[in-house]
Amino acid sequence: MSSKRIIQVERDILGKNNAIAADNRARFLADDLLVFNLVSSPGAGKTSLLVRTVSDLKGSRAIGVIEGDQQTSHDAERIRATGVPAIQINTGKGCHLDAAMVGDGYRRLPQLKGGFLFIENVGNLVCPAAFDLGEACKIVVFSTTEGEDKPLKYPDMFAASSLMLINKIDLAPVLDFDLAQTIEYARRVNPKIEVLTVSARTGEGLSAFYAWIGKQSARQRRPATEANAT
Amino acid sequence: MSSKRIIQVERDILGKNNAIAADNRARFLADDLLVFNLVSSPGAGKTSLLVRTVSDLKGSRAIGVIEGDQQTSHDAERIRATGVPAIQINTGKGCHLDAAMVGDGYRRLPQLKGGFLFIENVGNLVCPAAFDLGEACKIVVFSTTEGEDKPLKYPDMFAASSLMLINKIDLAPVLDFDLAQTIEYARRVNPKIEVLTVSARTGEGLSAFYAWIGKQSARQRRPATEANAT
Repeated sequence: MSSKRIIQVERDILGKNNAIAADNRARFLADDLLVFNLVSSPGAGKTSLLVRTVSDLKGSRAIGVIEGDQQTSHDAERIRATGVPAIQINTGKGCHLDAAMVGDGYRRLPQLKGGFLFIENVGNLVCPAAFDLGEACKIVVFSTTEGEDKPLKYPDMFAASSLMLINKIDLAPVLDFDLAQTIEYARRVNPKIEVLTVSARTGEGLSAFYAWIGKQSARQRRPATEANAT
Repeated sequence: MSSKRIIQVERDILGKNNAIAADNRARFLADDLLVFNLVSSPGAGKTSLLVRTVSDLKGSRAIGVIEGDQQTSHDAERIRATGVPAIQINTGKGCHLDAAMVGDGYRRLPQLKGGFLFIENVGNLVCPAAFDLGEACKIVVFSTTEGEDKPLKYPDMFAASSLMLINKIDLAPVLDFDLAQTIEYARRVNPKIEVLTVSARTGEGLSAFYAWIGKQSARQRRPATEANAT
């Protein structure tokens, strides 16, 4: 098969995905739902971060979670243990969630109007960058253990994300981790990326993350309110 | 595009790759070269491990390295600083090395007859599992920071690998890392996988890794010697 033909096939796949993602996005907006797509390497700590986040925020809003993994339902079980509904999607050989999987998962969740939906993508710093799921924005979770140069080496993911959450900040002192260098590399790829440091283990920095979520929520609602006013 | 059609396209891509991988393998055997394909998540420490390994082994054998990343030539530069030749392959949007890239890279390296070729794949615990490069075996580098459950969540990579190198073992005491559980999960996916613990930072466990490499070398040469004897 020629590489030209492969590129055409990739375009067809992405084109079909984008159409379904647009449907998802319209549905999420109609339901006044704020949707985050969490992406990272395997083991950056997305699930631990989500377990704390949904535990802390579930009193204020309806929350649901869609979990993506090649295999196992461990992550959905960890979320459900907090009392928050979660759907596990197993991608099998697949390396990312796509918009159709998320649309199906959302239909299986209870009513979340006016709340938050967190999507935890398959741990992969490459492929999920290309697949719009209909989310409000991507959040790349990056761990202090991964090395400062990863934004340069995997630029697509950092370019596609609105927020970089630097997790495991409690380990920074025992590692040779250079925070300023990491941020500089990330902003070289994406000058607009916002950055917060957190520790899912100690809770450090999480209140700033929740404030950031609140700000996105206000931003999403603003145009709708203005539209209603006209 | 139907999912049946997508599956057919994937088969065509893998079929073409496997044919080129077979050519690579024949060439490597003809050159009496032992080839390792190092796979892992981003940040597991493949490059740091390789820098130490090639520094320690370069006195005894010809060594070359092929480095895969989406962007940058940082890794090849780190290898070259040890005096060992390295080719950097940038995959751009691509999420893995394929056999054609490795064949091209090998042609650009100096003569390595009777030596070792280390291929450092793109950091991705999913896609590189499916792509044979012509290597003698895959080595999955797994870091203590990634969490015990990853072999179950990304089973294809652990099933495809002959050796699991558990890196950053020096950090195990400050993490809640359960070594026995990790090994149990890996062997559930691949009962034959060998396991070694190492630290690229402190050098712990590296001599056992070099002994393992020596064993593979003896194993690869044995059938050739026996064939010559008949």
